[in-house]
Amino acid sequence: MTGSAASASRGRGPRGGDADTRGDILAAAARIFGDKGYAASSLRAIARDAGVDPALVRHYFGTKQELFIEVMRPLERDDARVAALASLPPERRGDALLRLALSLWEDPVASVRLRAVLASAVSAAEVGPTMASMMLRDLLLQLVREDRALERAAACATQLTGLAFGRYVLAIPTLAEASVDELSAIYAPTLQRYLDGDLDAPLPGGEADVPR
Amino acid sequence: MTGSAASASRGRGPRGGDADTRGDILAAAARIFGDKGYAASSLRAIARDAGVDPALVRHYFGTKQELFIEVMRPLERDDARVAALASLPPERRGDALLRLALSLWEDPVASVRLRAVLASAVSAAEVGPTMASMMLRDLLLQLVREDRALERAAACATQLTGLAFGRYVLAIPTLAEASVDELSAIYAPTLQRYLDGDLDAPLPGGEADVPR
Repeated sequence: MTGSAASASRGRGPRGGDADTRGDILAAAARIFGDKGYAASSLRAIARDAGVDPALVRHYFGTKQELFIEVMRPLERDDARVAALASLPPERRGDALLRLALSLWEDPVASVRLRAVLASAVSAAEVGPTMASMMLRDLLLQLVREDRALERAAACATQLTGLAFGRYVLAIPTLAEASVDELSAIYAPTLQRYLDGDLDAPLPGGEADVPR
Repeated sequence: MTGSAASASRGRGPRGGDADTRGDILAAAARIFGDKGYAASSLRAIARDAGVDPALVRHYFGTKQELFIEVMRPLERDDARVAALASLPPERRGDALLRLALSLWEDPVASVRLRAVLASAVSAAEVGPTMASMMLRDLLLQLVREDRALERAAACATQLTGLAFGRYVLAIPTLAEASVDELSAIYAPTLQRYLDGDLDAPLPGGEADVPR
């Protein structure tokens, strides 16, 4: 295992030339995080479980937070679904973003990860910002209008996270029992405005004194 | 302590005729939940700490979930701020609701409770729905338009929870560093539409093909 081989595969696609080592570390991390929880897991224990030197774990994945997010992220930055979403005309992205987010939460593998990340974000303060910046970078910043891009992406994140929390974690009946189309009618316009709308304009649908 | 005295004070205002017993139970519950976490706390341990019979705890507060929420709730149903909000004309409630929610999260006492409830809602599945139904009943259902009231209240809850999560728990810089006025420009129109707008109408601010 050389440094250059490791660099070449780092962060690019699911499998590089040294896929086994990288994959071994990820599998070990999933076991250790799953058994002990985020706070009680160490890079040293993960390295031992994977049979590699801790320095190699750092080389591939950086900090413990970054490794955790890498194990738990439901979506790769270069996921084809994100590229498809970014290729849509801007006015159709709100609805498509909502549907992609709901489909991730309804996927058995991704939803376990999303729930674990949400729980860790509440209880382990150091995970939250890393998770949030990945969600913004991997998904939302690829979709927003250029002006006030960070505010737009963060606003989308707040609505998507809150909806997922109510529908999938709390299972509030009104949210949990709604169809995707019903949710789209309510939430896609919000996302659409955050992604591409005029953030300072009042919304005629919501202002009693604006003509319809 | 008679049953009728307990019934008379139950759920009405901060202090009834048997305020000390009720207050003692709440104080004991706060200690036990704080020390042991939600899952490991029992009504029996809380009763012992308060020096009362477990049946009395049940009589006042119902289930463990209900007692937890009662200890942790940041806002009473008859809070004067909620009444003031409900007395506003509907078109001004979105902004006022946003400002009330932000002020609770910036209050040192209320924010500790909100964070604890959020963490418990993720980790202890049985707390979440009770918490959510209290938030809807104590606050949001008093503010929404009559048609589709539950959907409206739940939609407000998703946006408020997601924003609080991003700003106060994750502390995403874009959200954490924004002023209340800046947040209002972005989020109040969303809440206004959920509270009182046309949920099926497209939002001109967000649709590229609708004239402004």
